[in-house]
Amino acid sequence: MGSAQDLDNTSGGTAPARPRGRRPGGTDTRTQLLDAARVEFAERGYDGATVRVIADRAGVDPAMVNHWFGGKEALFVAALEVPIDPVELAARVVPGPPDQMGERIVRNFLTIWDATGGRPIAAAVRSVAAHESAAKVMRQFVGRMLAAKIVGPVAPDRPELRGALVGSQMIGLGMMRYVLKLEPLASADHATVIAAVAPNVQRYLTGPLD
Amino acid sequence: MGSAQDLDNTSGGTAPARPRGRRPGGTDTRTQLLDAARVEFAERGYDGATVRVIADRAGVDPAMVNHWFGGKEALFVAALEVPIDPVELAARVVPGPPDQMGERIVRNFLTIWDATGGRPIAAAVRSVAAHESAAKVMRQFVGRMLAAKIVGPVAPDRPELRGALVGSQMIGLGMMRYVLKLEPLASADHATVIAAVAPNVQRYLTGPLD
Repeated sequence: MGSAQDLDNTSGGTAPARPRGRRPGGTDTRTQLLDAARVEFAERGYDGATVRVIADRAGVDPAMVNHWFGGKEALFVAALEVPIDPVELAARVVPGPPDQMGERIVRNFLTIWDATGGRPIAAAVRSVAAHESAAKVMRQFVGRMLAAKIVGPVAPDRPELRGALVGSQMIGLGMMRYVLKLEPLASADHATVIAAVAPNVQRYLTGPLD
Repeated sequence: MGSAQDLDNTSGGTAPARPRGRRPGGTDTRTQLLDAARVEFAERGYDGATVRVIADRAGVDPAMVNHWFGGKEALFVAALEVPIDPVELAARVVPGPPDQMGERIVRNFLTIWDATGGRPIAAAVRSVAAHESAAKVMRQFVGRMLAAKIVGPVAPDRPELRGALVGSQMIGLGMMRYVLKLEPLASADHATVIAAVAPNVQRYLTGPLD
């Protein structure tokens, strides 16, 4: 989920002290920003939370948000510990024939999730099921990202419903394959899962819903 | 999830003392059995756990399992706090035309879940995501109940894969509608959800998967 800026900043921990007594940039700053962001996003939602207030709460300069995360949206994703990067996902699945988007969605979820062994999914699910604040933030995330940026461009109608339906299938697939680890789905190869699931996702995207 | 025996046993708490110093039957007995069952099922799995060992662990007579739960399977379901009663579900969805089973499954999940407001789903999901032992028990449950008893009778092939796929859609629907509460899925009426989801479940049950 890290931006390119993250990777460049190997010397952040030894940067010169910032003015006004704020902490120098470093991994503590990043953690403080994530903690502050979780509180702010949960309390005010994505649109209500501001980079300035989050930085204030963390006791760091607002420029540190860009420095460490590249912007508010990337901070939101990092704070939420979403088990998939929606910006990366959109870049991979939106280009291409609309009638094959279901296949691109399933293939990319599998590739990204398999690389992490599903641990981020379990963490996100646990958090969402345990805390209404996390559920609220995740709800906004799914609505903003999935419905608006991925499903919206190809949906013939009702993009919000279609986005929620696609989300329901992908969350359920993630739960079954990586958290419940139910066979044969847990260790099925990508081709098998794509052949089974992609047509259903495609119907949610562009098929008739009634 | 309780059996008819549960309901009849309003006088259990004042029953005569049992032999061998065991606790008299009552709500404490039921709780003790549930606690012991969770440990045993998690450690040994459904097939490995026995009513006798569970009762021993709870410090009660094995007959109490039948008295309070009606048998090992019902104890298993009660211990797991599964957000749907699989025996009841099977009785409702198996009879009828196989090509309409997808619709019966979605309708019955919605009816049962709506009645509880989704709280049992959040509890089960949290438990499964947090504890490998709970995931293990739930995995056996889905495999035994969904694949074997509901999907198996209608599946033309690969009942285990079809069962896991149906489970993925229903778990995901439960997460979206009751835990994430994503609109418009969270408050859509049953007819809308059934029209949208049932054809996908039907394809998993009886359609081509490749």
